[in-house]
Amino acid sequence: MMNRRVAQAGLAEFLGTAMLLCTVIGSGIMAEKLSGGNVAIALLANTLATVFALLVLIETLGPVSGAHFNPVVTLLLRPPQVVLEPNFKPNTTTVQIFRWFVATFYLACQLTGAVLGAWLAHAMFELPILQISAKPRLGAAQWLAEAVATACLLFVIVRSAHAGVRASVLVASTIGAAYWFTASTSFANPAAVLGRMFSDSFAGISPGSALPFVAAQFIGGLIGVALARSLEPPATP
Amino acid sequence: MMNRRVAQAGLAEFLGTAMLLCTVIGSGIMAEKLSGGNVAIALLANTLATVFALLVLIETLGPVSGAHFNPVVTLLLRPPQVVLEPNFKPNTTTVQIFRWFVATFYLACQLTGAVLGAWLAHAMFELPILQISAKPRLGAAQWLAEAVATACLLFVIVRSAHAGVRASVLVASTIGAAYWFTASTSFANPAAVLGRMFSDSFAGISPGSALPFVAAQFIGGLIGVALARSLEPPATP
Amino acid sequence: MMNRRVAQAGLAEFLGTAMLLCTVIGSGIMAEKLSGGNVAIALLANTLATVFALLVLIETLGPVSGAHFNPVVTLLLRPPQVVLEPNFKPNTTTVQIFRWFVATFYLACQLTGAVLGAWLAHAMFELPILQISAKPRLGAAQWLAEAVATACLLFVIVRSAHAGVRASVLVASTIGAAYWFTASTSFANPAAVLGRMFSDSFAGISPGSALPFVAAQFIGGLIGVALARSLEPPATP
Amino acid sequence: MMNRRVAQAGLAEFLGTAMLLCTVIGSGIMAEKLSGGNVAIALLANTLATVFALLVLIETLGPVSGAHFNPVVTLLLRPPQVVLEPNFKPNTTTVQIFRWFVATFYLACQLTGAVLGAWLAHAMFELPILQISAKPRLGAAQWLAEAVATACLLFVIVRSAHAGVRASVLVASTIGAAYWFTASTSFANPAAVLGRMFSDSFAGISPGSALPFVAAQFIGGLIGVALARSLEPPATP
Repeated sequence: MMNRRVAQAGLAEFLGTAMLLCTVIGSGIMAEKLSGGNVAIALLANTLATVFALLVLIETLGPVSGAHFNPVVTLLLRPPQVVLEPNFKPNTTTVQIFRWFVATFYLACQLTGAVLGAWLAHAMFELPILQISAKPRLGAAQWLAEAVATACLLFVIVRSAHAGVRASVLVASTIGAAYWFTASTSFANPAAVLGRMFSDSFAGISPGSALPFVAAQFIGGLIGVALARSLEPPATP
Repeated sequence: MMNRRVAQAGLAEFLGTAMLLCTVIGSGIMAEKLSGGNVAIALLANTLATVFALLVLIETLGPVSGAHFNPVVTLLLRPPQVVLEPNFKPNTTTVQIFRWFVATFYLACQLTGAVLGAWLAHAMFELPILQISAKPRLGAAQWLAEAVATACLLFVIVRSAHAGVRASVLVASTIGAAYWFTASTSFANPAAVLGRMFSDSFAGISPGSALPFVAAQFIGGLIGVALARSLEPPATP
Repeated sequence: MMNRRVAQAGLAEFLGTAMLLCTVIGSGIMAEKLSGGNVAIALLANTLATVFALLVLIETLGPVSGAHFNPVVTLLLRPPQVVLEPNFKPNTTTVQIFRWFVATFYLACQLTGAVLGAWLAHAMFELPILQISAKPRLGAAQWLAEAVATACLLFVIVRSAHAGVRASVLVASTIGAAYWFTASTSFANPAAVLGRMFSDSFAGISPGSALPFVAAQFIGGLIGVALARSLEPPATP
Repeated sequence: MMNRRVAQAGLAEFLGTAMLLCTVIGSGIMAEKLSGGNVAIALLANTLATVFALLVLIETLGPVSGAHFNPVVTLLLRPPQVVLEPNFKPNTTTVQIFRWFVATFYLACQLTGAVLGAWLAHAMFELPILQISAKPRLGAAQWLAEAVATACLLFVIVRSAHAGVRASVLVASTIGAAYWFTASTSFANPAAVLGRMFSDSFAGISPGSALPFVAAQFIGGLIGVALARSLEPPATP
């Protein structure tokens, strides 16, 4: 079931998620090191680097895999037509199996990429490669923040089909804003949670805080998709 | 008089104004918490978050409601054709009544959204939901600043019909600049005044300062529209 | 010789230069007030506000007047065809006189706008309206910086005809970079020199420093235009 | 072998590399001078200035030379068709010699431009023109960082052919992110290494650190190109 196009899409998801996490964690380490304890300046730098990276990664890898880099996106929105369709005729059981195979493959690539991206950042900054974060991020307010952030992200992705600006710009801007308006600095991505668990730095999250974060992200994602669908124009008769 | 299209537009105005206020107030809280007392850094973060949010909200919700999120815009420029027209024939009393009904509905959605957006920000940051700002913003200089900011905003919206860049980019950039060049940090929006009245934070405004702010905004808005109209190209004969 | 189109162009030059100076000086005052003595943060805010304002002003006023806001641009590149041409047949003495009349009118509007923009900023920040800057900006290094900045600006304007991005974006980005890479923070505009002479603030320049700044700007402008022309593609045979 | 088109391309490479280095070094000097020892703020300013400058230089000079400004780009991707082709028929020895002549000419222009750009920055800031950096940048982590940064840069350039956003925006954003997520602040350019060797400032690099930086950049560049090629769509049958 693995053909060249699916393999390329998996490589794109791997590279994209790796470089996203490498950017988030690397720029967090750099910013913390240079900012002399002023966390706002560190988060500003972290925000700029993440926004730039998202724009570039979505544009350069989007044509190959749809540029998900995020299990919530893959599971709620499915891998894109271009990766799925050239193989089988639609509406058969085989196609459904193939869809789930590709989605699972995407998730594997995203999660592996996230961890290797964190490790690459550590290697560049001469830190121990293997780390586990000790930074707890718990509590209803944090979970609400993650749900809101992921709802915004999925809402924007679905609505971007109707916008006059590239989805890459809208997604990057959404995360740029959400770094500041959510109390959790907007992970909004289970792969980001996994990668950041393996980094005891500015951007880290302790393993004990991970599961509720991921749950909140999926709940938020579902709400975002539902809200976006409710604004769809009526079908023309 | 409420049909699906009008209901969707109202939901868009509600969501947009809510997330705009949530961004302004949430990023203000976050920035104040992290910036160690350096207000310039806090306002930089507040500016970036607001610019990103405006771009995203206008692009994703504009096709549904025109993306006003602002009573001055609704009352001076009217809800867009797409929401108003498919229902009645033009130039009849019924149409005029319908127009005013939709405008009033927009205002109700904007004002409700603004307050709920402030409350959402408080919930995410574990602050008391219900707050009243104690921050006075009074004096002729502040009112002049609000008039200038709102004049710029309305001028830009009207002129954007002639520009080669999306209105979303121009409006977001206008507010980004006006956060810094006006002494009031540019509310330029009565819904923003209402939402910020309910937040005793960086972005707040005391209820006693609200009315003159709103008056200055409407005066400025009228000036902005008049200036923009004076630059219209002559009608081709 | 004054017709509706010329009058509109003059109003656009007046409004644009006024709001440009109001932004530069207003955001300078705001940034200095909030930054607690950290000049780098103040200049960052000043940069962002100026970049946003330039983008908006060039896009909204460009279709009316060409969005010069700058005597160097007007004198080296001439007012645009749309303002000049609908009146007379080309290649006659009358046209030449008309061209010079319009250019002079542009300059008058720019210089008046610059001063009133400075005054508007002072009024919004409750400062004395009438001020004279006491900040000397002298020396060969400063003049070199102004020449380089203005050369870059004119080069970019001429070359933008061949670029795939709006001139507004390129001009705003040029000034955004030049605020930092030139020692003079890049005035690059005699109207800006005049407006800033009237502001004893962060962005000011003492009257005694003004003339050599303006001279350096014109020399730099000429070099920028010459360099841009030298890169023109060969005429197709 | 030198014709007008090749000479113009060389001038474009010279000007572009000079202004790029002038921006990087000039904004570094300015930022260090103003930031009161907070290196994060200095690097933020340095980042913004570099991003703006890259966007402008690539857009205004790209149509003339392809806007390389970087020996890794020239040697791995070759000067663009428009400069090479109008002279000879393809697939002959003469063409191959011509290609190498142009590439060598590009390199000479880039390296000369880099040094003169550094000197121009020094002149504007009243520093000694001739400086040699004393800032060591050594160690496997730094070299890994340079390889990663250059891999990202080349990857993005090759992939930008498939993106929906201008290559100028993607390249500028890549460098903007890499300033923060790599431990070396992402030189990613042997011409930048040369120019920065001649500046004992914020952006400098000691001559003893130069060679391994350049080696790492070429290795990274090769990896970036290979990765980008592996994502090419299958040839349509």
